[in-house]
Amino acid sequence: MSIKYPNGQIYHNNGDKTASKLQGKTKKRSHANRGMTLESDLNVTNEQYLISGKAVIHKKPIPIQIVNVNYPRRSAAKITEAYYQKASTTDYNGVYNGYYLDFEAKETKNKTSFPLKNFHEHQIKHMAACTKQNGICFIIVRFSSLNRVFVLPFSVLEFWWNQQKEPNGKKSITLSAIIKEGIEVPYGYSPRLPYLTAVDTLITQTNLKN
Amino acid sequence: MSIKYPNGQIYHNNGDKTASKLQGKTKKRSHANRGMTLESDLNVTNEQYLISGKAVIHKKPIPIQIVNVNYPRRSAAKITEAYYQKASTTDYNGVYNGYYLDFEAKETKNKTSFPLKNFHEHQIKHMAACTKQNGICFIIVRFSSLNRVFVLPFSVLEFWWNQQKEPNGKKSITLSAIIKEGIEVPYGYSPRLPYLTAVDTLITQTNLKN
Repeated sequence: MSIKYPNGQIYHNNGDKTASKLQGKTKKRSHANRGMTLESDLNVTNEQYLISGKAVIHKKPIPIQIVNVNYPRRSAAKITEAYYQKASTTDYNGVYNGYYLDFEAKETKNKTSFPLKNFHEHQIKHMAACTKQNGICFIIVRFSSLNRVFVLPFSVLEFWWNQQKEPNGKKSITLSAIIKEGIEVPYGYSPRLPYLTAVDTLITQTNLKN
Repeated sequence: MSIKYPNGQIYHNNGDKTASKLQGKTKKRSHANRGMTLESDLNVTNEQYLISGKAVIHKKPIPIQIVNVNYPRRSAAKITEAYYQKASTTDYNGVYNGYYLDFEAKETKNKTSFPLKNFHEHQIKHMAACTKQNGICFIIVRFSSLNRVFVLPFSVLEFWWNQQKEPNGKKSITLSAIIKEGIEVPYGYSPRLPYLTAVDTLITQTNLKN
């Protein structure tokens, strides 16, 4: 029997959609299809947080430049030419218990460090601006080969971002630094990726500094 | 000589793009092209707030369901079939001095009331959820024929939204109620639509209630 979320979606252990099929046969976990799970895990988690009244966090739509639209019927406009645009902000934001949250979520197949090329200058600037407004900014990073997820405060990302411009600057954040400076998020059932527990720690740290 | 914003965009008095051309000839203000100015006025205002470090507020991209993408060159993916989707949230959100702001902006040609059909059930639900998280939620409404703009707290919109389902419920919010319960935003130069002054009042009112 499959377990279902309140929204009717079937629960897949650890975001691994092939696991339930394999479990009966081999008891061995499949490592396939792990590339794009962080986003779907976060979408499910945010829906669980929304339903339970814990927080209102949404992923922003991808910005698209629309060039041509056809109107075959009055009710359904069909976009026939459009292009992807660069986002000027991070992908996720929302409100949690009076706090403005803002974050970017990325994953890597690397096992020992997280490449900084996953982030862009405009995202760093955006998170710096939100931090100045007393927003809570962070990144959620997933090491897909290790299947470990961390919340890392923006201040740490900013430090690593700036050092890469220096001579002999590193192009990625080491896993050991992420383990030390970040907060690991264990997978759960509901919520699937309970990152707000890590955010509580960030908020406490931020309030202690002020 | 035209006045320019810090971002190089030319300043048009009151959002009326034909006014500067007409002023020399007739001194009479044109009432044309006023239909879509609230969004552009807010975009300019939000950029001014961003540059001056006052707040970080962005309009969310329109959600689009992408069906087909062509790759004529590796660098430029061309979307050849896509459809508009219904947004599940409001259009604007961001952070201001530690506060989460969330709002929808709409305009009407009506002169005596603001039709509730400009809003949707999911937007009401979204703002109700954000309000529960202690976010500051409101609408910005513009009466284009009168060229008057108001900030109206979500609590007032919610009251009018709910009464429309009752017998003899009104389908629009009267201008007199908006004048009484809302806060008028006068047009300025920089920022063009200084709505954060009205938001300050909302925040004070909210804090007094708590």
